[in-house]
Amino acid sequence: MYTNIPKNALPRVLIVGGGFAGLKLAQSLDRKRFQIVLVDRNNYHQFPPLIYQVASSGLEPSSIAFPFRSLFRKNNGFYFRMADLLHVDTKCKQAVTSIGRIDYDYLVLACGATTNYFGNEHLARHTLPMKTLDESMNLRNVLLRKFEEAICSDTERQKELLNICIVGGGPTGVEISGALAEMKRYVIPKDFPELDINTLRITLIDASPRILAAMSEKSSATARKDLIALGVDVRTELRVLDYDGETLALSNGETLRTKTVIWVSGVIAKEVQGIPAEVLGRGKRILVNAFNEINGQNDVYAIGDQCLMTTDPAYPNGHPQMAQVALQQAKLLAENLKRSLQQKPPRPFLYQDLGAMATIGRNKAVAEIGKLKWGGFSAWVLWLIVHLRSILSVRNKIVVLLNWMWNYFTYGRSLRLILKSNTKSSES
Amino acid sequence: MYTNIPKNALPRVLIVGGGFAGLKLAQSLDRKRFQIVLVDRNNYHQFPPLIYQVASSGLEPSSIAFPFRSLFRKNNGFYFRMADLLHVDTKCKQAVTSIGRIDYDYLVLACGATTNYFGNEHLARHTLPMKTLDESMNLRNVLLRKFEEAICSDTERQKELLNICIVGGGPTGVEISGALAEMKRYVIPKDFPELDINTLRITLIDASPRILAAMSEKSSATARKDLIALGVDVRTELRVLDYDGETLALSNGETLRTKTVIWVSGVIAKEVQGIPAEVLGRGKRILVNAFNEINGQNDVYAIGDQCLMTTDPAYPNGHPQMAQVALQQAKLLAENLKRSLQQKPPRPFLYQDLGAMATIGRNKAVAEIGKLKWGGFSAWVLWLIVHLRSILSVRNKIVVLLNWMWNYFTYGRSLRLILKSNTKSSES
Repeated sequence: MYTNIPKNALPRVLIVGGGFAGLKLAQSLDRKRFQIVLVDRNNYHQFPPLIYQVASSGLEPSSIAFPFRSLFRKNNGFYFRMADLLHVDTKCKQAVTSIGRIDYDYLVLACGATTNYFGNEHLARHTLPMKTLDESMNLRNVLLRKFEEAICSDTERQKELLNICIVGGGPTGVEISGALAEMKRYVIPKDFPELDINTLRITLIDASPRILAAMSEKSSATARKDLIALGVDVRTELRVLDYDGETLALSNGETLRTKTVIWVSGVIAKEVQGIPAEVLGRGKRILVNAFNEINGQNDVYAIGDQCLMTTDPAYPNGHPQMAQVALQQAKLLAENLKRSLQQKPPRPFLYQDLGAMATIGRNKAVAEIGKLKWGGFSAWVLWLIVHLRSILSVRNKIVVLLNWMWNYFTYGRSLRLILKSNTKSSES
Repeated sequence: MYTNIPKNALPRVLIVGGGFAGLKLAQSLDRKRFQIVLVDRNNYHQFPPLIYQVASSGLEPSSIAFPFRSLFRKNNGFYFRMADLLHVDTKCKQAVTSIGRIDYDYLVLACGATTNYFGNEHLARHTLPMKTLDESMNLRNVLLRKFEEAICSDTERQKELLNICIVGGGPTGVEISGALAEMKRYVIPKDFPELDINTLRITLIDASPRILAAMSEKSSATARKDLIALGVDVRTELRVLDYDGETLALSNGETLRTKTVIWVSGVIAKEVQGIPAEVLGRGKRILVNAFNEINGQNDVYAIGDQCLMTTDPAYPNGHPQMAQVALQQAKLLAENLKRSLQQKPPRPFLYQDLGAMATIGRNKAVAEIGKLKWGGFSAWVLWLIVHLRSILSVRNKIVVLLNWMWNYFTYGRSLRLILKSNTKSSES
């Protein structure tokens, strides 16, 4: 394999990871001053806030993903390579990837975070994550298969198959719980009239005293009330100790018989070989200074979920791992890299909190902007608008909007296909 | 596992396979007189005529697939089970499936056909089929990966990776060749400006003297001319002898270095254990009488691609394996089963040829209706209308139409995502 990236007179910025942070940086960097190389393991950028809708058969994966090559069609001096990062060689200023070594002048790590099983192998093996598009497609298939299997099972096994537990009461856990509760109400009774719908149970488990712990108490209470109204069993101050694929062991000594555990309980930053352990902070996040430069490294940066910055006075313990932080850091880094070429001092990062929101179901959401905290229909409409605006490409905006309208008015989910994986390739 | 299908007073028709034939039969049978059980290995009906558009990134799989449970939502007395047929026990009047034994009063086999490798293990292992939705998704992923790989390869390997050979000059082979040629012209130069587009070669190989051999010589010639104009190398009277994943051996002694061989060279009927070998005809098709009853069997029928009927005076060698034959046989069988309950004699099947068509590219198709044979824009528009009408569900019609319009006006393909398969399940 060759990397086939031509050297030119411009300094090269190598960005690893094309999530919110990496993509924004690639789009914001001055292409007249830098050669930009973006490396990602997928050939597309994905939009995590709507992944739960793919998992719950509301959207197609293609609606919330966008091929990098389309995004940079008209840009000379931009190179995309689909590859895995193996390790970083800071001495030689090279990233070692699955397609070979790539030289850099500036390296930016934007690899994001992955599901955190807190070191428990059983949880990693038996529970279902929902962090990537591939995982959400798999989750959709698994869920739909459980219903088909339940139809052909005795009552006891039906209960196990249809006892869906969601572990983690953050926005993702709340949103998938709400979406599944709506499927239970509007879709399953029509698709599976033979099933006793009461057999299907949806339980949301969180270790904190309240769900949506990062939001206000008021929003937490509204979300809890709405979820309970939808039929979700919300259980807080409860930790999952273990799971063997059949029995979920809880911290209060209770056990639950379940075949389906969705694990959205937390994230851990992706590890990069070659980055010294002493610069890793909480959740394996890479410690950076106020300019996103990795402590003790020259010309190596980390942005987004993968980094931990404690220099922002308002966030002495680091910023939340959210899209907004990633986008703002990427934008500032693009500017600071340009300033460094101009011999100007860099500007420190200060996070502008634009608010937080989570949707629960039809006409139901919670939103917080500054001191304003509210729920209900208007919060839900705002959620729709904000997310629709954030999706890349006109085509995907149209497709998502049409899907939402269709699902809203028909109370349906049209995409209930179990697509099998097929790994045959002409190379095997 | 239990089948959990309640017995009632009505005779049970068990249909195996929910393709054109099986689905049409399930929809046409009189639900007041029969209990209907449909078994399929997938939970959705797929629309094969547009599978090539999924493979070539023009449509999403969900646009041409429809969950069985949605189709029969309002029908009492209909049962769908997702299961594999293991064998047929005609003595006990039972089908043995992966979820258990299912009793029948009437059994209808509508399992269709699968890709025919003519017994060549190498071809089965190394070439890419395109008969099912899963296969077309895999083909899409493989094709897109080849381009990413080519970017990182030397010129010699680029040629192998981008030398795409399509084996089989029927409608499917013609349609995928045309679609790939249009990708070469409109999409690849924009997405992969670093690639020399001339490295990408598309070769259509057929053993017959002409492509679209089932259509008229005029249509064949039009299709050939159009494909050549699009840049496809059309090679007829040439057979593939072998392929080891690198080198394609041809009957004229020539060899081609290629990493991508799409195999659409013919089909073979699905085999069913328990059906005696003596009732199998050409291409493993099950021999049936004029009423689609399997020769020598009572109350066991075969319809569609899986059967071979030689009683139709216009088709002494059997009907072509086409959607129209399947649909018409299913409709007549529904009527004949009802007539048998009414003690009326069954009506023999006579195929009404409604014509044939194949699309080649933008504004280009060939069509034949009776003695009328023509090509060009109006044939292409007719092709669009006929296929749009045939797709199930209003939602899918809208989605396909919008996709077609989008792709037509933007000269684009929006769905170029390499979605990895992920087989993790909470059951493992």
